[in-house]
Amino acid sequence: MSEHMQMQQVAEDCAQHMVAQDAASKALGIAIGVVKPGSATATMTVTAAMLNGFKTCHGGMIFSLADSAFAFACNSQNHAAVAAGCTIDFLRPALLDDQLSAIATQTYQGKRSGIYHVEITNQNAQLVALFKGNSARVNGSVLPDLLTPKA
Amino acid sequence: MSEHMQMQQVAEDCAQHMVAQDAASKALGIAIGVVKPGSATATMTVTAAMLNGFKTCHGGMIFSLADSAFAFACNSQNHAAVAAGCTIDFLRPALLDDQLSAIATQTYQGKRSGIYHVEITNQNAQLVALFKGNSARVNGSVLPDLLTPKA
Amino acid sequence: MSEHMQMQQVAEDCAQHMVAQDAASKALGIAIGVVKPGSATATMTVTAAMLNGFKTCHGGMIFSLADSAFAFACNSQNHAAVAAGCTIDFLRPALLDDQLSAIATQTYQGKRSGIYHVEITNQNAQLVALFKGNSARVNGSVLPDLLTPKA
Amino acid sequence: MSEHMQMQQVAEDCAQHMVAQDAASKALGIAIGVVKPGSATATMTVTAAMLNGFKTCHGGMIFSLADSAFAFACNSQNHAAVAAGCTIDFLRPALLDDQLSAIATQTYQGKRSGIYHVEITNQNAQLVALFKGNSARVNGSVLPDLLTPKA
Repeated sequence: MSEHMQMQQVAEDCAQHMVAQDAASKALGIAIGVVKPGSATATMTVTAAMLNGFKTCHGGMIFSLADSAFAFACNSQNHAAVAAGCTIDFLRPALLDDQLSAIATQTYQGKRSGIYHVEITNQNAQLVALFKGNSARVNGSVLPDLLTPKA
Repeated sequence: MSEHMQMQQVAEDCAQHMVAQDAASKALGIAIGVVKPGSATATMTVTAAMLNGFKTCHGGMIFSLADSAFAFACNSQNHAAVAAGCTIDFLRPALLDDQLSAIATQTYQGKRSGIYHVEITNQNAQLVALFKGNSARVNGSVLPDLLTPKA
Repeated sequence: MSEHMQMQQVAEDCAQHMVAQDAASKALGIAIGVVKPGSATATMTVTAAMLNGFKTCHGGMIFSLADSAFAFACNSQNHAAVAAGCTIDFLRPALLDDQLSAIATQTYQGKRSGIYHVEITNQNAQLVALFKGNSARVNGSVLPDLLTPKA
Repeated sequence: MSEHMQMQQVAEDCAQHMVAQDAASKALGIAIGVVKPGSATATMTVTAAMLNGFKTCHGGMIFSLADSAFAFACNSQNHAAVAAGCTIDFLRPALLDDQLSAIATQTYQGKRSGIYHVEITNQNAQLVALFKGNSARVNGSVLPDLLTPKA
């Protein structure tokens, strides 16, 4: 198996391991899509329980979708990482039944700290929000029974 | 009724009106506490459904609590306002059964844009996260049947 | 002249007009490079007068370079725009005589507000900082004697 | 000498040591005022060389003032610290000859990372900008010949 295929396998294993334990993402109906080394996609449908007083999707739910995609992206290389800080810009309201997609990509990854950008769009490919996540690697791997990759 | 008492009454009316319609905050068990002109407090208990793969509270849930407090604070003067952007720094994990409190205060409010800071602490008064919300007033009032205050 | 060529001409005219009046960029030795509708590049060499107590380039100087590139990018369509807010992540120190480049690209541009990302690299193509600028269009055009384009 | 007085002395020694080596702050005419453990003030007058094409103070110069105050605050306890990231909101333009003041205060300081907020006002006590700095302590002390304080 080539190094590229091996890294891809690690990314998929990490995602599968995390999904199984992530009650919060499950409770919001967040589904993880394609995961690659340093990137991940996630989708979520806006339900009635996600609406705020303005009948638009609560910002926290949009943030949660982005944050989950970010978490899968920054944990895709089997180094356990947590969110240190995030920013989000809300560009367009999300409405009931909207199908939101979040695409997280790695902009920078140092030894410890990383920066990931997430684009959140709706079913019409319109930009709903832009998210930046700053990650911090902690000790330990995502998959307990695998050797942590060197790089 | 003095102007101060009137503004306080408006703040409480806005909060009551918003709470009744905010399905998302209700779904997360977010309770709104004291609301004053420009400020608001909110509380939430971390449930099993809020935990991520690391068995800590999903960042999106902490953000949601802060975002709700922010929303109540920036809508407390009967000018309808939405979140334009937010930043959050995560300083300490929140764990199962933790009781989180968010205190939102107005740092700046111009004609349109406002800046609110929110401190999120746990039941031991330890800082869990720091949040900044940038709000944008839109046309319309929070309470449809009240004249919008001048200031 | 095609619409594309016309927009490119407008971008170059805006840049030329702004450069001539921008004393601050000139004082820092910031040179504007390629300007297109929605994007701009700028370069700056780190001088002894830009160093802080750690003998690295003061963060404010790196920010200034990014901010100038951002300003040229968000004013490239002849709508006068100002910075509403910015974030910057410092990833690697810049040292004396480093030649820094900033590339600003438009991620989002609505009727009023825009979001631009700027990458700052050194002469070895290493990432020095990542910058995000939130712009707000104000009334008026950049070029006083030209009709403001519709779009 | 009490512990409080000792910490105050350390803060002043750190500031004095840094000022002497900070060419960038000097070049902008930034003067450091009161420095305490975790806080610092700095002032700067807007000169013609700081103006941009709109005849207002370049955002990078306002950022630089805030960043210097932040640097003095987060280095006031003799742990060498650098800026990891910053955000700034521009609320009001600064004009020629405006006298700007920046007050940096420590909101959070962990073992490594810290969060400092800086308020920038003009000579009329009007808010010009709000700045947040995230600091990261690096190995080493600010004052080479002093024992690093424990706390």
